[in-house]
Amino acid sequence: MDLEKIKTPMLLLDQKKCEANIKFMADKANSLGIEFRPHFKTHQSKIIGNWFKKQEVKKITVSSFKMAEYFAADGWNDITVAFPVNIREIGQINTLSANINLNIVLENIESTEFLITHLKNKVGFFIKIDTGYGRTGVSFDIFLIIDKILKSAELSENLVFKGFLSHSGNTYYAKNIDEIREIHFDSLQKLALLKKQYAGRYSDLIISVGDTPSCSTLENFDGIGEIRPGNFVFYDLMQYNLGSCAFDQVAVAMACPVVAKHADRDEIIIYGGAVHFSKEFITINGVKVYGLVVELTESRWKQMDENNYLVKISQEHGTIKASQSLFEKIKVGGLVGIIPVHSCLTANLMGKYVTTHEEIIDHFSGK
Amino acid sequence: MDLEKIKTPMLLLDQKKCEANIKFMADKANSLGIEFRPHFKTHQSKIIGNWFKKQEVKKITVSSFKMAEYFAADGWNDITVAFPVNIREIGQINTLSANINLNIVLENIESTEFLITHLKNKVGFFIKIDTGYGRTGVSFDIFLIIDKILKSAELSENLVFKGFLSHSGNTYYAKNIDEIREIHFDSLQKLALLKKQYAGRYSDLIISVGDTPSCSTLENFDGIGEIRPGNFVFYDLMQYNLGSCAFDQVAVAMACPVVAKHADRDEIIIYGGAVHFSKEFITINGVKVYGLVVELTESRWKQMDENNYLVKISQEHGTIKASQSLFEKIKVGGLVGIIPVHSCLTANLMGKYVTTHEEIIDHFSGK
Repeated sequence: MDLEKIKTPMLLLDQKKCEANIKFMADKANSLGIEFRPHFKTHQSKIIGNWFKKQEVKKITVSSFKMAEYFAADGWNDITVAFPVNIREIGQINTLSANINLNIVLENIESTEFLITHLKNKVGFFIKIDTGYGRTGVSFDIFLIIDKILKSAELSENLVFKGFLSHSGNTYYAKNIDEIREIHFDSLQKLALLKKQYAGRYSDLIISVGDTPSCSTLENFDGIGEIRPGNFVFYDLMQYNLGSCAFDQVAVAMACPVVAKHADRDEIIIYGGAVHFSKEFITINGVKVYGLVVELTESRWKQMDENNYLVKISQEHGTIKASQSLFEKIKVGGLVGIIPVHSCLTANLMGKYVTTHEEIIDHFSGK
Repeated sequence: MDLEKIKTPMLLLDQKKCEANIKFMADKANSLGIEFRPHFKTHQSKIIGNWFKKQEVKKITVSSFKMAEYFAADGWNDITVAFPVNIREIGQINTLSANINLNIVLENIESTEFLITHLKNKVGFFIKIDTGYGRTGVSFDIFLIIDKILKSAELSENLVFKGFLSHSGNTYYAKNIDEIREIHFDSLQKLALLKKQYAGRYSDLIISVGDTPSCSTLENFDGIGEIRPGNFVFYDLMQYNLGSCAFDQVAVAMACPVVAKHADRDEIIIYGGAVHFSKEFITINGVKVYGLVVELTESRWKQMDENNYLVKISQEHGTIKASQSLFEKIKVGGLVGIIPVHSCLTANLMGKYVTTHEEIIDHFSGK
């Protein structure tokens, strides 16, 4: 795009890379014979949703009922809300399930019992399983709770058991692909155990997993019926650093105006801070990193020979620790490109995308 | 408010506390004989802006030209954009300065020279001074750069020198009030030196400072002409922890639904994550803390006997490490209150406030 038109921090989206990422994952799921139910919480965009439709995607995952309403209004009619069900939103659940195939996630008896008496329509449910991430979900080997939920759910015609859902979010903190593989296989084994335990009673049960690192890098998904990756649609510095993607697969970059330079400490100050990038960081060689500097061109951005990082961030200010050559090249009043550490949070903060063809693309703004 | 109406994470605002905070700071500035130019980037709300008008506040600070446009449209006509001027927004600068008294911040010769040839109307400018925070600005003792900017600015009738502006953001990282005092006095001394150096040539020059910790806790503002605190309008856990405010001065709390409990590790999972709170944290007793649990009541919230913290956060999930008594008290499907670590970032993410009288209050959404 015409870089002169960029006046304030802007989230650039490379549509070609994004569509290639979507095709890559759709093809992979197809070739593995697995259902592809992508997580839309990363992009939260109807326009980008249409790019998934081109790949014959019919089922999606979101992280809130409001996001489900947003996509249901755009014609998506098979949606899993992959978050422990928030029963305070029973009104939304009943409205949504009257209109689409809605799946929810259960992990305790309290929510299950509430739904038995409050659901007005059929709702599919997955039981959330913790295979080691330790955030939430029933531990894969606590059959007692799983049995209780299943037994309780049988009291309601509206609660339809779909299977077990897990998210190995710990792969995000892996150091390399070997560690991703270890976490993934450990998770597969635990889920296989669970499947073996319940397949007799529920022959159609689906095992649903979903982290981007595993789905991007590994080939063995034995026993898995469905994958739900989300971040792969854009990737980001965290995923690139982890080895989940090549640099040229990263589909978003921030464009930020340069407002000051400090020669005494090789620092460049940009207009771009926590309200644009979020405060998510990764640690590289002992340094907190909020983004990687790239060179912006009229057609898109490109990797530089050296790695220069965004190393400090406050509400609107960002600080780049610059090499001598970057410092000399960058002018006050110019622009720098930055690959964000976590594209989901950056997209959520920016609230819109600009393509390399200068098209403005929507991002859901509800909260 | 009627807690039953809260279905999803919501940012509660206590109007009484907020108005008391505004009055406290306005009275303090008055009694010290200092101009009060509050920073509106914390609340970014026209409604809350009106509460400042009740205290006779006429001049404000913002952090972007877009935010200046937002408040100018509501009648504010004396606005300082306290961020190193982004010359790519020259169009906005010329439009704003045609309609209001606009002040900008300069800290280098490149931006100054650009403005000399591009400004269409009179614009006040402050030179940004670094007194030790180390983020950006000209170091207080580099008269060479200051002189260059001043000399250069004299070439333009449109650049009107107002004074020196500093922000001791390092007080946010102080451990206690003694450390805040040390940083503040060090800054005062450096600014006094600067004033002495330039007062001969510019007899009306204003020294403008602005961090909430100093403005909230200290009384000596010798030589200071203007204060620009922002966060004090709400305060937050960071400020409370630092000693900048009493607990009952904190004017915002998040209300979050409880979606799961894990008895084996005393953890409560809430619907409330990085997209609601931000990923800002403070460290208390070696633990990363994203918020403090409070008890919600129909009229507002209250501090609990024990400190229970939000200790982990991902995109939508939050994890509370709970005492035995909190764990037993909190039910799945219930609500918890959380004082956020950094109210500016939380307000920016939530995009609106709900008062204890259930009134919805605006928050600027431009970016």
